[in-house]
Amino acid sequence: MPKGEGKIEIVVEEVGPKRKMSIKEKVDTVYPWMEDTVRRTFTVKTILKRFPILQWLPKYSSEDAIGDLVAGITVGLTVVPQSLAYANIAGLPPQYGLYGSFLGAFMYIFFGTCKDVPMGPTAIISLLTYQSLHTVNIDPAMLPVYGTLLCLLCGIIQLFMGLAGLGIIIDFVSGPVSSGFTSAVALLILTSQLSYILGINGGGSTFPEMIYTLFSNRKSIQLTDTALGIVCIIILLLMRLLADVKIGNVEDDQKNSNSQRIFNKIIWLIGTSRNAILVGICGVIGYHVNEQNHFKLMGYIPPGMPTFEIPSFSTKNGTIGFLDMVQDMGSGILVLPLVGILEDISICKAFANGKPIEANQELIAVGLCNIGNSICHSFPGSGSLSRSAVNNSSGVRTPFGGLYTAVLVILGLLFFTPYFEYIPKASLAAVIIAAVVFMVEVRVVKPIYRSKKSDLIPGVATFIACLILRLEIGIIIGIGLNLVSILYHAARPKISIEINKTRAGIEYLLITPDRCLIFPSVDYVRNLVTKHSIKKGIPVVIDCSHIYGADFTAAKVIEILTQDFSKRGQALVFYNLKPSIAAIFEGVQPKNFFTCYDKQKLDEIIRNTNQNGSNV
Amino acid sequence: MPKGEGKIEIVVEEVGPKRKMSIKEKVDTVYPWMEDTVRRTFTVKTILKRFPILQWLPKYSSEDAIGDLVAGITVGLTVVPQSLAYANIAGLPPQYGLYGSFLGAFMYIFFGTCKDVPMGPTAIISLLTYQSLHTVNIDPAMLPVYGTLLCLLCGIIQLFMGLAGLGIIIDFVSGPVSSGFTSAVALLILTSQLSYILGINGGGSTFPEMIYTLFSNRKSIQLTDTALGIVCIIILLLMRLLADVKIGNVEDDQKNSNSQRIFNKIIWLIGTSRNAILVGICGVIGYHVNEQNHFKLMGYIPPGMPTFEIPSFSTKNGTIGFLDMVQDMGSGILVLPLVGILEDISICKAFANGKPIEANQELIAVGLCNIGNSICHSFPGSGSLSRSAVNNSSGVRTPFGGLYTAVLVILGLLFFTPYFEYIPKASLAAVIIAAVVFMVEVRVVKPIYRSKKSDLIPGVATFIACLILRLEIGIIIGIGLNLVSILYHAARPKISIEINKTRAGIEYLLITPDRCLIFPSVDYVRNLVTKHSIKKGIPVVIDCSHIYGADFTAAKVIEILTQDFSKRGQALVFYNLKPSIAAIFEGVQPKNFFTCYDKQKLDEIIRNTNQNGSNV
Repeated sequence: MPKGEGKIEIVVEEVGPKRKMSIKEKVDTVYPWMEDTVRRTFTVKTILKRFPILQWLPKYSSEDAIGDLVAGITVGLTVVPQSLAYANIAGLPPQYGLYGSFLGAFMYIFFGTCKDVPMGPTAIISLLTYQSLHTVNIDPAMLPVYGTLLCLLCGIIQLFMGLAGLGIIIDFVSGPVSSGFTSAVALLILTSQLSYILGINGGGSTFPEMIYTLFSNRKSIQLTDTALGIVCIIILLLMRLLADVKIGNVEDDQKNSNSQRIFNKIIWLIGTSRNAILVGICGVIGYHVNEQNHFKLMGYIPPGMPTFEIPSFSTKNGTIGFLDMVQDMGSGILVLPLVGILEDISICKAFANGKPIEANQELIAVGLCNIGNSICHSFPGSGSLSRSAVNNSSGVRTPFGGLYTAVLVILGLLFFTPYFEYIPKASLAAVIIAAVVFMVEVRVVKPIYRSKKSDLIPGVATFIACLILRLEIGIIIGIGLNLVSILYHAARPKISIEINKTRAGIEYLLITPDRCLIFPSVDYVRNLVTKHSIKKGIPVVIDCSHIYGADFTAAKVIEILTQDFSKRGQALVFYNLKPSIAAIFEGVQPKNFFTCYDKQKLDEIIRNTNQNGSNV
Repeated sequence: MPKGEGKIEIVVEEVGPKRKMSIKEKVDTVYPWMEDTVRRTFTVKTILKRFPILQWLPKYSSEDAIGDLVAGITVGLTVVPQSLAYANIAGLPPQYGLYGSFLGAFMYIFFGTCKDVPMGPTAIISLLTYQSLHTVNIDPAMLPVYGTLLCLLCGIIQLFMGLAGLGIIIDFVSGPVSSGFTSAVALLILTSQLSYILGINGGGSTFPEMIYTLFSNRKSIQLTDTALGIVCIIILLLMRLLADVKIGNVEDDQKNSNSQRIFNKIIWLIGTSRNAILVGICGVIGYHVNEQNHFKLMGYIPPGMPTFEIPSFSTKNGTIGFLDMVQDMGSGILVLPLVGILEDISICKAFANGKPIEANQELIAVGLCNIGNSICHSFPGSGSLSRSAVNNSSGVRTPFGGLYTAVLVILGLLFFTPYFEYIPKASLAAVIIAAVVFMVEVRVVKPIYRSKKSDLIPGVATFIACLILRLEIGIIIGIGLNLVSILYHAARPKISIEINKTRAGIEYLLITPDRCLIFPSVDYVRNLVTKHSIKKGIPVVIDCSHIYGADFTAAKVIEILTQDFSKRGQALVFYNLKPSIAAIFEGVQPKNFFTCYDKQKLDEIIRNTNQNGSNV
């Protein structure tokens, strides 16, 4: 390890025992501690952290305003068709998607830390909502009531997790598990939307069930819907490419002529608002061919804003109480908040540009938004991965863009619902398919294979389990596999064993464990050390350079180990043992416990031992 | 790290890419691999491992025979009264204790690895059995049927775990959790036996329930039972001291005269077989005062051997099927095998004398013994902690001692059951109390406090949870706390940050993470590195000496990190990165990824960077 002067230790290890405090001193420290806690809760820093708007609003410029306006409107044009479609994925009437797309988006302005997050319904959460709500116990007529309660509970859990600092939980979802999960969700959504493209009845919540339903209904395929759907998908994929088309100087738009620049902007705008344009055109077509029943259309959507009220905690005039409702929705209640924040955080990471991510504040923000959304009868939402790309490429500068999105959704609810009913279902399905098809992360397999093959196991397991079981079980299996692997490595450290010689030519066994000595590994280490020590019968040196942690169980085993060596008259020296770890071992007062911190001293100890034929 | 010549690397890291095999080569390796697998399964080594009797029987000497005879008979004299009492703890008729004390003890001779393990009913397992069986759903009349099935399932799970090499699970029970659990069990058993000492009705399965029952029945205390119980406890504790009393030369018995030696032997024998002697005397008293109804006696015990039959998988003429029975017994089915092997392994550890412990073979052995026991209507058992001390101090030499124990129990069943019915319940309770009172491990608190205070948390939590909740929930809470702490440390490594200078006087930031870079920690590490790097704006060196593992998620984050540094024009060098880890990082093909393995090179890289003002 290279060392020099001017050293500033930021993490300092505590060495030696602390002074004991008298009772009076202890009491005297309580009041300052309370004062301090109160003060810390209300410091400027904490308030700025909890209300990130206070950090960017004072510096808000006219450039920011323009960027946010353009992005907010573009996202708004995307969210309207998407939210209608996502409500469909969640198995709820379309208006519930719109209900969940304004208040949360507005609230995120105050609490959100990431400018690119468009709060609202998302494909993944909608599918999880579907799986949580569509169980045998839930009356289909009551789905919206359940959905709203799920949204509230999801928000409360996220808020609580954020306040309790449990953002760390998100770190336990590894890249491969996350990719496997997202890919499976995308494939499931894609399959579920196929029924609308084909104009047949779909159904089922797992991949085999969905495929089976599609296959058994294959005879009622509507060719008009199918044709429209396929054309829409192709147009959307082509228009997606359009957003990147540029004429003139491709590298630097500033060098282009005014007309070139305006042309580029228009092309980009058309490409980016492709969903709204396509759905609009299809709506017009739907309106005109309505009489002939060519396409399956959205149907009546109740106009106007939702009523604002606290979600009801019972259904069917109170015969099904709160606990029954919770039980009916099952484990989804716990997995949904986690997956929601996971999607949100992955947006933050994608656009962070090296800045740290505030997972706990995001939990608080998304939690509050969901609580807010539940008041307008929404089902759960989060930051939408597909719209975040639109938001970012539209040049969003602050979370303020959410305001324009919210306004657009409210306008839609107030004035445009009569027009929405003519939208063909196949065109909405095309919007979703064109959005989720890029979420199937096939491209991630190769780098994982090149980097660490065994990481494919949790990824593929999650993918398959999510397809054939419920989504929440799939992701729990993936996370579980990852945790088992961490725990296994904690229990079975790598130990390198070498025979070294001192300068005087005396052989000794050098044993180097690669990590902490804690309860799951210490018996294994002891067995290995004992086995090799007895076989060789020469002095043993345990190199503790990598041992950064230990516990009482380890200390007890070290005590037995030193006893065993002492009984055999074999030397055992702990080389380079950190003082903090030595203190833990010395807590059990082991006999014949020898440590040593430099090579010369080590040579000396081994020489002495060899001459005496017994432990020093 | 001290290095010398004559180095033998036993754990070698794989460096560089492996040569790819052609399809033919792959096929060619399959047959040898299959042959090899078959050969390995039936090697002498494997057979010796699976039948440890083959290791010691060929070397069996007359000395071994004498040691085993004395120990086997002594343990037998202990197991008879204990097993009657433990059946009582399990809430089953007394004969079931005896049914579980011979076949398993006999089978352990063939499969067991530890000479000191006396296979049979144990206090801990009996209490767990009680909690598993005494639920609302189980008809009290059917308890023995359930107990036998529990024994079979417990054995099958243990056998399976052993064959699958899952002995590693035991390593995840830390010392403090194990102590907290054992202490709680001892306290619970002690409290449950108090009712027999007081001659009143006890009940309840948690500590508060038991105390409440005792308290509410306080008016019906039988003074005769109480007096007998207290006297028995005092006598047993005094006789326990007797085993260590010696006259003449205390240090070396060989130097004593013949009469002294015989006296010492007799005293020791009386002390060691105190349980049998006391219960025998009390039985005689009970027989003589039977008519006056002074004491609560054992009552009728059916004489003779149990029938040998496969446990029934349904009760009540098949109306309650196998799955119903399993559901009735609940999670105890999974916790019981684990706790059983835990008790067994702790005996092995206590008497191992530095020899490695074969956890998997012990699982197989105890599993087979439980399967065997289930055929004679027994409830689950394991190696008994209290009898192992008797076994060891009686000079047992091999597991063969179990034979004499088994013979003694069979003799008891065949000829002595009519006498057992006169044993006062209070005297059996005294036997148990005198055995478990030393299992309350108060003495362990001080060394834990001295060694690592935070280790008290899982220990105390387990203790309290076991007392007020069900035992299995208590131990799961303790293990859970331990695992969360391991995972937390995996997610939040310690990172030391220093400012160093090269020999040319250029400052750089040296960042040293203390352990593996894997998915739960890598975002945290990245945030920290980014924060400090931006703050200082000088070249950054990450010292990877302690990084022994990495994964794909880490590789992806390292890729982003190098990109961020490259964008900022700040130098980032990975110092002393193991080649195996570098290969993982290089799998995602990061740009500007620089590693360096010696200090001079490092100085050079930093100097170049500083002159160019950009990354090398």
